[in-house]
Amino acid sequence: MAASETLIDAESAAARIFRGATRIQHVSTDNRGLAYGDGLFETMRGAGGVLPWWERHWQRLQRGAGRLQLPLPPEALARSEAEQLLSGGDGVVKLLLTRGSGGRGYMPPPHAEPVWILSRHPLPPPTTTPVTVRWCRTRLSLQPALAGIKHCNRLEQVLARAEVGSGEAGGDGAAREGLMRSTDGDVVCATAANVLVLHGDRWSTPLVDRCGVEGTMRAWLLEQIPVQQRRLAVEDVETADALVLVNAVRGILQVGRLGDRSWAPHPALLALRRTLASAHPAFSLPPSGPGPMELS
Amino acid sequence: MAASETLIDAESAAARIFRGATRIQHVSTDNRGLAYGDGLFETMRGAGGVLPWWERHWQRLQRGAGRLQLPLPPEALARSEAEQLLSGGDGVVKLLLTRGSGGRGYMPPPHAEPVWILSRHPLPPPTTTPVTVRWCRTRLSLQPALAGIKHCNRLEQVLARAEVGSGEAGGDGAAREGLMRSTDGDVVCATAANVLVLHGDRWSTPLVDRCGVEGTMRAWLLEQIPVQQRRLAVEDVETADALVLVNAVRGILQVGRLGDRSWAPHPALLALRRTLASAHPAFSLPPSGPGPMELS
Repeated sequence: MAASETLIDAESAAARIFRGATRIQHVSTDNRGLAYGDGLFETMRGAGGVLPWWERHWQRLQRGAGRLQLPLPPEALARSEAEQLLSGGDGVVKLLLTRGSGGRGYMPPPHAEPVWILSRHPLPPPTTTPVTVRWCRTRLSLQPALAGIKHCNRLEQVLARAEVGSGEAGGDGAAREGLMRSTDGDVVCATAANVLVLHGDRWSTPLVDRCGVEGTMRAWLLEQIPVQQRRLAVEDVETADALVLVNAVRGILQVGRLGDRSWAPHPALLALRRTLASAHPAFSLPPSGPGPMELS
Repeated sequence: MAASETLIDAESAAARIFRGATRIQHVSTDNRGLAYGDGLFETMRGAGGVLPWWERHWQRLQRGAGRLQLPLPPEALARSEAEQLLSGGDGVVKLLLTRGSGGRGYMPPPHAEPVWILSRHPLPPPTTTPVTVRWCRTRLSLQPALAGIKHCNRLEQVLARAEVGSGEAGGDGAAREGLMRSTDGDVVCATAANVLVLHGDRWSTPLVDRCGVEGTMRAWLLEQIPVQQRRLAVEDVETADALVLVNAVRGILQVGRLGDRSWAPHPALLALRRTLASAHPAFSLPPSGPGPMELS
């Protein structure tokens, strides 16, 4: 993994742009993704030149495209080009799908040709430190029409992530992720991860029917273990026996600290991560320990 | 006006791109406006090579940039380049301001260099027909952190505008704009215009403190006449003596029909439009009538 990582330079991340099935050189200045965030995206972890969870990501993209009435690129082409970007190595591939150009103002064109971008990015640096998180002041608004899908209207996440900062300062400033509540006060997610809590032997995770994203790692977990989807209050998080962040790039991360509350590594987590490691090669556990804890 | 309009072709709309104070050739694929809608925009009506309401638009852009902690380009450069795009004629200039590239995922870079795009577009075709509007099913979510400013997270407007369609069919299909309510049910705006209602001699307009945009034409009107800003119910709209749509490109438009309700032209509107014509050369009234009714 280390060897291939050196090939992936964030400063020169490979990117390819397409309109429909045709490779093009530039994104037009009237692209609707740029103008209105009129698009969807997927961020996929690749291993050894392949994207093991392509189907999960593509299915979510399809659901989002159905909701927004966005045209999709040809799947076989998108997958082949995405995996080519990995050059046989590990890394993260982002697929950004926009409605392309056209239309009159907000009105989408009746026959849009999708413009889509593939880009390769380095894996986040591994860390063995449990994650420190904090509560964000920025709330998520309630919008069932956009909930669950991974659309490109992400200013709420940008504002929330800016509150968290770089994680370099001490105290609460050491936080590297932020927990977000809805405008109604219920806990929804971290800025770039879904959240699970454990009480005794009962797992729960917030519903994503009014806001939040239906993460692919969250979906995988719901297939592996019994997890109740419900509204989660701040107290449900703060009284949990374990608090976990999950996403498709970082895998399964335990939270070590939230304000005054701290958590020791929980055995249930190690079991989950072993299951994940056997299901997805990118998350295989190194022989020396319980596997990397990564957070970008 | 007709002569200069022929110079402006939507198919080849002039566009200029800048990073900070430097003109550049392309928008990078990792632009944060493209990725997250991390930006703001202004759509300005120009007349005779100038943008008469530049200051109003720039002030709103400044408010939005303060809210999102976005860096601004140099104002004098932005104005000069924007007015050059008009080539001495009439037209619409759009300024799209993005946070540029960089950062780790949602986290904005600490010292972002703004990437901004100016583009010229034709004036909407004049029409003397009062506007037919309909109610949209898509609601606006309540998000005080983003309310009022003209940010680039506009999927709600895209979905709502798609409901309205092209205005070419009969019946409700003749609608050319859609009225939007918040998820709480109060009336907020049209997809691309603010709304005013008249009851007797009392004007009111929805508050834009929880959702909606603080339009420049709305702001101008609030300085000219007494208008109460309040929550507006559907019944307030349907029982109004006049229903008006306003924005910086189209000016002041009376609604002629909404479902079963229809309105004759109201004398208060003509007075308002005369005041506007004397304040802003782009909205001057032709000698033959009360001025164009425009709707893109």
